[in-house]
Amino acid sequence: MLLTFGETMALFVARRTGPLRFARDFDLGVGGAESNVAIGVTRLGGRATWIGRVGADEFGDLVRTTLLGEGVETVAIPDEEAPTGLMIKGRRTADLIDVRYYRSGSAGSRIGPGDLDAELIRSAKVLHVSAITPALSPSAREAVRHAVALARSAGVMVSLDVNYRRKLWSPSQAGEWLRGIVDQVDVIFATEEEAALITDEPEKLPVPHVVLKFGAKGALERSGGVTRFAEPYRVTEVDPVGAGDAFAAGWLAEWMAGGDADRRLRTACAAGAFAVTSQGDWESLPRRADLALLEPGAGDVSR
Amino acid sequence: MLLTFGETMALFVARRTGPLRFARDFDLGVGGAESNVAIGVTRLGGRATWIGRVGADEFGDLVRTTLLGEGVETVAIPDEEAPTGLMIKGRRTADLIDVRYYRSGSAGSRIGPGDLDAELIRSAKVLHVSAITPALSPSAREAVRHAVALARSAGVMVSLDVNYRRKLWSPSQAGEWLRGIVDQVDVIFATEEEAALITDEPEKLPVPHVVLKFGAKGALERSGGVTRFAEPYRVTEVDPVGAGDAFAAGWLAEWMAGGDADRRLRTACAAGAFAVTSQGDWESLPRRADLALLEPGAGDVSR
Amino acid sequence: MLLTFGETMALFVARRTGPLRFARDFDLGVGGAESNVAIGVTRLGGRATWIGRVGADEFGDLVRTTLLGEGVETVAIPDEEAPTGLMIKGRRTADLIDVRYYRSGSAGSRIGPGDLDAELIRSAKVLHVSAITPALSPSAREAVRHAVALARSAGVMVSLDVNYRRKLWSPSQAGEWLRGIVDQVDVIFATEEEAALITDEPEKLPVPHVVLKFGAKGALERSGGVTRFAEPYRVTEVDPVGAGDAFAAGWLAEWMAGGDADRRLRTACAAGAFAVTSQGDWESLPRRADLALLEPGAGDVSR
Amino acid sequence: MLLTFGETMALFVARRTGPLRFARDFDLGVGGAESNVAIGVTRLGGRATWIGRVGADEFGDLVRTTLLGEGVETVAIPDEEAPTGLMIKGRRTADLIDVRYYRSGSAGSRIGPGDLDAELIRSAKVLHVSAITPALSPSAREAVRHAVALARSAGVMVSLDVNYRRKLWSPSQAGEWLRGIVDQVDVIFATEEEAALITDEPEKLPVPHVVLKFGAKGALERSGGVTRFAEPYRVTEVDPVGAGDAFAAGWLAEWMAGGDADRRLRTACAAGAFAVTSQGDWESLPRRADLALLEPGAGDVSR
Amino acid sequence: MLLTFGETMALFVARRTGPLRFARDFDLGVGGAESNVAIGVTRLGGRATWIGRVGADEFGDLVRTTLLGEGVETVAIPDEEAPTGLMIKGRRTADLIDVRYYRSGSAGSRIGPGDLDAELIRSAKVLHVSAITPALSPSAREAVRHAVALARSAGVMVSLDVNYRRKLWSPSQAGEWLRGIVDQVDVIFATEEEAALITDEPEKLPVPHVVLKFGAKGALERSGGVTRFAEPYRVTEVDPVGAGDAFAAGWLAEWMAGGDADRRLRTACAAGAFAVTSQGDWESLPRRADLALLEPGAGDVSR
Amino acid sequence: MLLTFGETMALFVARRTGPLRFARDFDLGVGGAESNVAIGVTRLGGRATWIGRVGADEFGDLVRTTLLGEGVETVAIPDEEAPTGLMIKGRRTADLIDVRYYRSGSAGSRIGPGDLDAELIRSAKVLHVSAITPALSPSAREAVRHAVALARSAGVMVSLDVNYRRKLWSPSQAGEWLRGIVDQVDVIFATEEEAALITDEPEKLPVPHVVLKFGAKGALERSGGVTRFAEPYRVTEVDPVGAGDAFAAGWLAEWMAGGDADRRLRTACAAGAFAVTSQGDWESLPRRADLALLEPGAGDVSR
Repeated sequence: MLLTFGETMALFVARRTGPLRFARDFDLGVGGAESNVAIGVTRLGGRATWIGRVGADEFGDLVRTTLLGEGVETVAIPDEEAPTGLMIKGRRTADLIDVRYYRSGSAGSRIGPGDLDAELIRSAKVLHVSAITPALSPSAREAVRHAVALARSAGVMVSLDVNYRRKLWSPSQAGEWLRGIVDQVDVIFATEEEAALITDEPEKLPVPHVVLKFGAKGALERSGGVTRFAEPYRVTEVDPVGAGDAFAAGWLAEWMAGGDADRRLRTACAAGAFAVTSQGDWESLPRRADLALLEPGAGDVSR
Repeated sequence: MLLTFGETMALFVARRTGPLRFARDFDLGVGGAESNVAIGVTRLGGRATWIGRVGADEFGDLVRTTLLGEGVETVAIPDEEAPTGLMIKGRRTADLIDVRYYRSGSAGSRIGPGDLDAELIRSAKVLHVSAITPALSPSAREAVRHAVALARSAGVMVSLDVNYRRKLWSPSQAGEWLRGIVDQVDVIFATEEEAALITDEPEKLPVPHVVLKFGAKGALERSGGVTRFAEPYRVTEVDPVGAGDAFAAGWLAEWMAGGDADRRLRTACAAGAFAVTSQGDWESLPRRADLALLEPGAGDVSR
Repeated sequence: MLLTFGETMALFVARRTGPLRFARDFDLGVGGAESNVAIGVTRLGGRATWIGRVGADEFGDLVRTTLLGEGVETVAIPDEEAPTGLMIKGRRTADLIDVRYYRSGSAGSRIGPGDLDAELIRSAKVLHVSAITPALSPSAREAVRHAVALARSAGVMVSLDVNYRRKLWSPSQAGEWLRGIVDQVDVIFATEEEAALITDEPEKLPVPHVVLKFGAKGALERSGGVTRFAEPYRVTEVDPVGAGDAFAAGWLAEWMAGGDADRRLRTACAAGAFAVTSQGDWESLPRRADLALLEPGAGDVSR
Repeated sequence: MLLTFGETMALFVARRTGPLRFARDFDLGVGGAESNVAIGVTRLGGRATWIGRVGADEFGDLVRTTLLGEGVETVAIPDEEAPTGLMIKGRRTADLIDVRYYRSGSAGSRIGPGDLDAELIRSAKVLHVSAITPALSPSAREAVRHAVALARSAGVMVSLDVNYRRKLWSPSQAGEWLRGIVDQVDVIFATEEEAALITDEPEKLPVPHVVLKFGAKGALERSGGVTRFAEPYRVTEVDPVGAGDAFAAGWLAEWMAGGDADRRLRTACAAGAFAVTSQGDWESLPRRADLALLEPGAGDVSR
Repeated sequence: MLLTFGETMALFVARRTGPLRFARDFDLGVGGAESNVAIGVTRLGGRATWIGRVGADEFGDLVRTTLLGEGVETVAIPDEEAPTGLMIKGRRTADLIDVRYYRSGSAGSRIGPGDLDAELIRSAKVLHVSAITPALSPSAREAVRHAVALARSAGVMVSLDVNYRRKLWSPSQAGEWLRGIVDQVDVIFATEEEAALITDEPEKLPVPHVVLKFGAKGALERSGGVTRFAEPYRVTEVDPVGAGDAFAAGWLAEWMAGGDADRRLRTACAAGAFAVTSQGDWESLPRRADLALLEPGAGDVSR
Repeated sequence: MLLTFGETMALFVARRTGPLRFARDFDLGVGGAESNVAIGVTRLGGRATWIGRVGADEFGDLVRTTLLGEGVETVAIPDEEAPTGLMIKGRRTADLIDVRYYRSGSAGSRIGPGDLDAELIRSAKVLHVSAITPALSPSAREAVRHAVALARSAGVMVSLDVNYRRKLWSPSQAGEWLRGIVDQVDVIFATEEEAALITDEPEKLPVPHVVLKFGAKGALERSGGVTRFAEPYRVTEVDPVGAGDAFAAGWLAEWMAGGDADRRLRTACAAGAFAVTSQGDWESLPRRADLALLEPGAGDVSR
């Protein structure tokens, strides 16, 4: 079982491209980096548990029912004192995503070590955290520190996705926190820019499995001194948000299933490709049977 | 010119009746009690100025462009430190409105005395405030106190709409504030329940013009010892939000235009009726020519 | 076969109640008083032919394909010189329909006597005209005159629906035209207000069958000195536009099928009731089998 | 725990009132009489398990994720041989629901005794069945017989909602089946028309708890020789479908919670009222805290 | 006149890309391979007749009114025993169409030889069939056999579009049927994969006109020992469904109009290009005047 | 301040690609070449005034409120005699825009010299006209002549965008008018095809600043005998309408701000690029801060 925790928000998505104030119509859904990963692992046949705080409100119920529905073991702690956070997503142009948050002081940001069941963490096969959580609040940062320490002591694999968010903290703040935790991590997911937050020499990162993502140019994994590259899948991009979460989910699901490095990277790239080919942060994540759909020839009309 | 100030928010309105999490589709607009009044006065031919803080963001631009477009003289002060507040509106059932706010720490709540141009206040014919503003923050409360004092000293009529919001403060907090300001006010708008926040004997309120609203049962004005009743208009209700603001706008527009008490009440009731007959907090407010549409026989198909 | 002619327009319908400029979303359909009658007759099992001019454009194609699809024998004459007219329909309030036209100089208004096939008219059982057509243009007025004369000479029943449109002509203009034609008519459909355009003594109208509509209060037919009343059906009104056309269609379909006066009025009222119970000018018109749905007890959930 | 089983379908709901072919836009959801009851019980704080067959397809996934999300313990058995059934719902007029099924040979109709875990049934507090299931197929009928027998032998309360569907079987077929099972039932829910399918003397039905529903006129329960009436709640009806399921869920949830007869009927009526006040078959079902919203005065704008 | 017959279904089209269960909103239309061809021929100025069975229901009415509206001579035989079939279309990713059917036992699949008017077939210039129909039911297969035999004996050209549907039958089943009919056919339309169902040596197909489609790579016609290639048009693809039907319609319309082989192929490619450039299976098919729009320079803004 | 005048219309935009009659859903907005330029200048920090006639109707109010909201100084003269013009915009294919007008006899076309305040013109820094206006009516043509003469005599820069509309006049009519005015112009914007309406030797155009646009291939400016080229920005095109207006606005805003030729062209190209990257004629026009978003690397997800 993969255990993860963090903030999942209600998500308003604009239906039209252009400045947000002209969007007029919005769809309602949910999104959160860690729950996206939990859903992704579940789709690929793994078990996943997500822990988080939500408001005692309709949007908190939406987060809970959505994750439960997707088969994630969901610990959505209702917080009577604070509302569920909001994310509002649009496109300034066809090529530029525009994301706004209403998450300051949200229920999700109030997570703390006391919300994490130590037995759950110890019983997990993987603990997955993102570097969004430590940027939310001091208690959230402490929750990450606490969970990683528990996992390390119990021999649970620790996975970290850098997921840098410049609206939450500065590069130097993020870099400092990352440098403080990186040597407790078993696998790290990062883009080249994110790796540079930690070190000028990413090839020397003290992490057993370093996975670097190059977007439409593929990805690499460096494990045990060996570096493997994976070619990207060629797909028509509809919505890039969630691709990194999908990628991590693909890698981790295969790691949990005992897949070798080539298979991990290949599934990671496939999951990332699915994520961008349709709308929503996680809705399009693949089941095992879907992975074949990206192979050549699958694009025929399936009548 | 009517001068008013307060918080105007981006407004997401659910398209379907039922719990908000099943609403799926939302329309985007703006709403705010004071700007609703400003628009209402403008529609009826008066001049109105609105002052408020908005985020330096798309929703702040939406507030500014919407009010400017409606002909309100708009002083929308961009606040780089805080976002525009949000309001989310749905219907739990056909008969129950459900409103949620994301306005804690918002740009609009950060208004203070320094945002109010003293010359503008002194040059106004009416200063209109609602008891929402003092519930937003200490600086906002101070802004109301400051503005009312300035208006009083300059002989500007002071109008107060109680507009009690239980999500912002308790009845006792609201009551205390209202009792502290009520003797500086020239006209007060309240429902019976709102009047009871101030005093058990509303007939003894120390305000020259007391206007009490009974919803679908009409309204009364007590001025100079004389009490006048007005019958309500019979209309099909579509959305009750904004009716109180429309009512105040109708009364104030007629007062500014020199209308007598009967005309003030009649226009107030008509404006309130228009407000409930269609969607949106203020979109359906009447122009002068529209007032005749509520008279018997106007309902024919206007082909 | 019922023969009718007139102008059918593309119809934009606002999705939201309130001033049209806030409606934002519009549905596209078609509408026209005479084609509404033709569709209504067809639904009830009669044959109907509609003649009209349309632009050589997408909206003209929409008129043609819609009427053809509904089974109306359609003579939609493409006019290369003028566009298809437009109608824009909204609701100012839940109780007030707001209709705008872009039909000045339209293809439909350019109809003339030459567009009407004399053999078709002579072979009809009923010629149905509305008093909208003579208000469109001199050639359209001449077309009505010409068709009525042809029908009279061939012994074809002439039906006239007053359908007064104040946006097209004044009461006195309409009255003058109506008085000039009324003695060539076999059946006239009118509201009380419309009857008053012609004469102060509607009971003396020189028409064999006078059918007066009282909206939600029912209708009457005066034929051969006998007056029959019909009770209205009680239904929830969704969209009143088209009710009069439906009523005429119900009456005429029964007349063509040999129904007696009671049946004519009853079907007319039922058709009018269907017209108001759902959206669109004609979409909800009843088939024979539907008429039973308005009887008591039919409202059960048909699972 | 309440155990129930049956067919839950994907549900397309037309957005516009009128004949279905003009509806143009449809929303996608799910619906099924028994799962509606399971959701209703869960909302009110009880535990509920639903068993059913679904296609190995997207609509089967939709059924599963929706019920899981609502907290129902869901045993959705994927059937590789048959698709998930469909229901298409519209309104012929504002007052007439129009429902169509594509469920012949569906996965849901292929349920049989072998799909029901005997231990689950024996461990339940209530077994709830509807008389829709026996009309679906011989194996489904056998499943009901088998489950009721198991429940009886284990002392589990047996609940039956008549839920007559004329599109599935004739009154005489339904009556015969109902008469064969009615003496094995502990509580029966029926309208007056449904009761008449079984017997001309409903007051003599050999069932410990007989609950008769009179729609907008309230309901009664006859238990142990005592008859209690309950007044209906007055609400604005938006969509009547699902009201009966909600009613049964309210009664059963209170019975499971140990509520007395007055409370059972009152909650049943409240749940039924909520069901009709908004869109969807089950989305608007009340949580415990919602029940107070129907009391007088709760309709104020909740700002 | 081109005569064709087959099954036309109601078509629900998902508005969003991604797994169907997240699509939420669907548009309603109709689609069917043979009626698509009939519409395509009609648009290009030819006459076309379509015969098929539909349910005695709203969707059957939708099929009839849509085809009638498009000018197809429509023989839509209402079947009281079975419903109109459904097709549900979405996109799993931007590049992968997902189509589901509810057509098992549908009215359309119950077509048989008795539904085909022999005189109509004999009077046609072309009989067009697709290899979908024989996969629907034994009676449908017999209908094809019967119609082809009638056409042959009357000297009517026989056109066959392979249109292989793997959801209806296996490659070997399809191949066997195709091999049994191919020598009674005058023109066959196929992709390379479809041709391989019949023979390993497509160049030896015993058909006077063999038309092979290579999608975005163009097409070829082999007639009388001569092979002609046609370059494809370069367009932005919006929806690939219906392209093959459009292609066949283009070829057949030109054949009926006496066009030579180059013109036939060129119009076929143009019609196929139009089909993919907008939504819907047939809505975007070109009229004669539209064909020029694909030529270079036509893409300018037509203001 | 830039002064401009012309016709701005209500704009219905089809939501689906394909023939307009299948579009079904339309959005409502406004558009007009000159007001697009005024908005574009305002977005980039300049002042702009727009003068035009609108109907005394909802669409006229929509034009006024939209332009006012965007910060344009708006002189929208209500015309009681004529309605606001309409524009209907769709896409025949993904690559082909389809625009229809209902502007014949519209309020906007009735503009005349008397509507233009001479003092406003004399006080402007730039007078901007398009060659759409002279094609609308004799009075509109006279208004252009009059304004240009006034501007020349007051030393105000005169800007002309050719904006050829073949639905309004023929190439020869347009050419004749353009040749008559071109020597009174300080800057002219044209495509190559538009320049060819005036002369076969565009390099000899007697205009101080000649700006030629090559669409996706960039643009050039010839001023004082020097020719500068600008590379285009590479963006994903969503809606090409309004690109030319945006381009002119970018150039003029920089000219007014004192930018040199390189900056003028670069901002013009950037504004044109923004215009095509999202929906609407003007909604996506850039503010100064947005210009940086087109630079490489800005396309990252802005979380």
